[in-house]
Amino acid sequence: MIVGGGFAGLNAAQALRRAPVQITLVDRRNFHLFQPLLYQVATGGLSPANIAAPLRGILRRQRNVQVLLGEVVDFDPAARTVILNDGQLEYDMLLVAAGVQPSYFGKEEWEPLAPGLKTIEDATEIRRRIFVAFEAAERETDPEKRKALLTFVIVGGGPTGVELAGALAEIARYTLRREFRTIDPAEAKLVLVEMADSILGTFPEPLRQKATQSLERLGVTVRTKTSVAEIQPGEVVLRTADGARSVLPARTVLWSAGVKATPLAERLAERTGAERDKAGRIVIQPDLSIQGRPEIMVLGDMSHCRGAEGKPLPGLAPVAIQQGRYAARAIRQRLRGQKPPPFRYRDLGIMATIGRSAAVAVLWGWKLSGFVAWVLWLFIHLMQLVMFQNRLLVFVQWAFLYFTFNRSARLITGGGGGKAEAQESPPKPPQS
Amino acid sequence: MIVGGGFAGLNAAQALRRAPVQITLVDRRNFHLFQPLLYQVATGGLSPANIAAPLRGILRRQRNVQVLLGEVVDFDPAARTVILNDGQLEYDMLLVAAGVQPSYFGKEEWEPLAPGLKTIEDATEIRRRIFVAFEAAERETDPEKRKALLTFVIVGGGPTGVELAGALAEIARYTLRREFRTIDPAEAKLVLVEMADSILGTFPEPLRQKATQSLERLGVTVRTKTSVAEIQPGEVVLRTADGARSVLPARTVLWSAGVKATPLAERLAERTGAERDKAGRIVIQPDLSIQGRPEIMVLGDMSHCRGAEGKPLPGLAPVAIQQGRYAARAIRQRLRGQKPPPFRYRDLGIMATIGRSAAVAVLWGWKLSGFVAWVLWLFIHLMQLVMFQNRLLVFVQWAFLYFTFNRSARLITGGGGGKAEAQESPPKPPQS
Repeated sequence: MIVGGGFAGLNAAQALRRAPVQITLVDRRNFHLFQPLLYQVATGGLSPANIAAPLRGILRRQRNVQVLLGEVVDFDPAARTVILNDGQLEYDMLLVAAGVQPSYFGKEEWEPLAPGLKTIEDATEIRRRIFVAFEAAERETDPEKRKALLTFVIVGGGPTGVELAGALAEIARYTLRREFRTIDPAEAKLVLVEMADSILGTFPEPLRQKATQSLERLGVTVRTKTSVAEIQPGEVVLRTADGARSVLPARTVLWSAGVKATPLAERLAERTGAERDKAGRIVIQPDLSIQGRPEIMVLGDMSHCRGAEGKPLPGLAPVAIQQGRYAARAIRQRLRGQKPPPFRYRDLGIMATIGRSAAVAVLWGWKLSGFVAWVLWLFIHLMQLVMFQNRLLVFVQWAFLYFTFNRSARLITGGGGGKAEAQESPPKPPQS
Repeated sequence: MIVGGGFAGLNAAQALRRAPVQITLVDRRNFHLFQPLLYQVATGGLSPANIAAPLRGILRRQRNVQVLLGEVVDFDPAARTVILNDGQLEYDMLLVAAGVQPSYFGKEEWEPLAPGLKTIEDATEIRRRIFVAFEAAERETDPEKRKALLTFVIVGGGPTGVELAGALAEIARYTLRREFRTIDPAEAKLVLVEMADSILGTFPEPLRQKATQSLERLGVTVRTKTSVAEIQPGEVVLRTADGARSVLPARTVLWSAGVKATPLAERLAERTGAERDKAGRIVIQPDLSIQGRPEIMVLGDMSHCRGAEGKPLPGLAPVAIQQGRYAARAIRQRLRGQKPPPFRYRDLGIMATIGRSAAVAVLWGWKLSGFVAWVLWLFIHLMQLVMFQNRLLVFVQWAFLYFTFNRSARLITGGGGGKAEAQESPPKPPQS
């Protein structure tokens, strides 16, 4: 039984292709989502389907897998059953890879004001907010309100925050250029807020510097050593490391400051006595199983797995993929009566893109930046997409984006039946 | 002032490119939607963005147009203002082209049970229902309930109903083939219900026959002279012309039986004293204006415009496009002090596709069917898409669909946060 069809769950299922096992893959979605490109859906560059691949389609030829659409809500390890919101399923061996969700560090009331980016629905909602803000600014006559509509705050300077900020800068500077009659979208103020000394804390120093410079060249204000003290409709209160507070009127706030395990991890820990870390992730053994529960393995972002230097492995696609493949190998070894060796993560590197023609990357031990890193970023992400059709569609859209700056997927959909509401209070009409 | 960025409104704006006028185009969406392909979004063949083009992007170079996102709710013809839900806008000349919505002929309570297909949100909701039904059937153990989950009823045998039925048949027979382990999607029962003697009533007799045969070959049951007496969760009550009733257990019902003007038409008629037809459309003069209100023209599906033989023109894209261009020409003539000649519709033909490799069409007076009609259908629809990028993306996806049968955009999104609920009561789990 595999819970979750993300990188870990899908790779585990695929690597068990020739194993003498019957696999049930349960996911509450009918598709595998390529999360590293989700920010491009949120910024109108790609359509949701371009980065999603139907799980049934991927696994159709693998006869030992049954894919089920269902929402797992609890576990009963004694009875070896997984409990869905509408039934239950039995297992012999359980792999749980249910991922993470945005964490607001106890300020959950900020969620509606500052959405995070983990699902397709998150992405289309963020897309709606970004483009509605420009639309409302075009109709706003009060200069103060207009300024707030054109101020975008991104909280959290990790790869997702940096990529969102870069894409937003491109939208404001290039995509929307000449499309408005009252406002100049290039006047939009983009603020990237990061609590630590520097953005991209997981990258080595020269690359952090390079990324900051690239963002600033695109017009993004990078505010490090700054945290969010409060979020209210229409404003964000920032606090610097020395305690000074400042109020920033801003209508659009995006959250990429951190993640935590889903409530499912809490259930699993309760039922198995497993330890959880501060982010709610389940602390696992070197063979990815839960202590005292060798038949339950936890994979991917949901797990807290110590790497070679004793630090927990980061929540990256390569970690999840390698864990999924390891789990499959470990199951095959156990079926042969062998004891699996501990999981070892082979570090493939990290990368982040900053708008067009710029990226930073650590690959094979090399530090790369600028155009070379960007081309590598494009190539690696394109090749990682699951279906060939999606590779082609993404390639076509990237080519158009590069040459025409157009973002054809910038639709305002959902959110109160497509009404042009600007989040909280409606904008005033212009004098026509 | 143009209300609505559909075929009529957009073409009117574009045809006024060189006129000495200032144009404001108001739409509650930020995109022009190519509605003839909306059924392909509803059936997972295309992504919403592929058939939508941002209005600002289309009109960016036309300096005499300002595009505004806003929802028009009323009019004040005496003050020459359009009233939005959050303000008002003044006009000298008003073109209203706000389209239609599904009509349930007084049974509005059926709407949540049998959604119509007019917006992107409708399309993604229908897509969700279709694919959730197959997913729920895979997990359903009760054969009766499973049968109801695999029964799809399409109400209304016009082009949209025929196209939906054809696409559904392809999904069941080809796309989902071998993807399930418990059910055989090909056993899905597809019923197309039409009140009249024949489907595609606007087509000449031999083509109606051909379309019926094509649908039946795909496994669709075509029930003519049959109407819907009642829709309940999980079942549809059908009534034949002789009054006999039969109950059809079906979980998924799609509505394409008719349209009516939006509430905006009612407002406009109230304020101007204009006559409305049974479908709520505004009866207009030969110059497309409202009687006694030469400064207000009504265009597209929203208008009831008599054709050459005295019959009202159908709600087709070519009618709306020609009316939009006529309105622009009439405005230019009036500015020169000329009286515009009456609008005349040049009939370009009608067409409908029935799954792969089959279509029916009346073009340039010729009656076409089969593969030739289908290729023409593909070509004409591809060329009508507004942006070149979308043409290329749609072409790539059609090519993949043709050769691989895969529908890459078949995502289940929305609807209660992605939960696998099967509309009303949840399915039981299988014994695993």
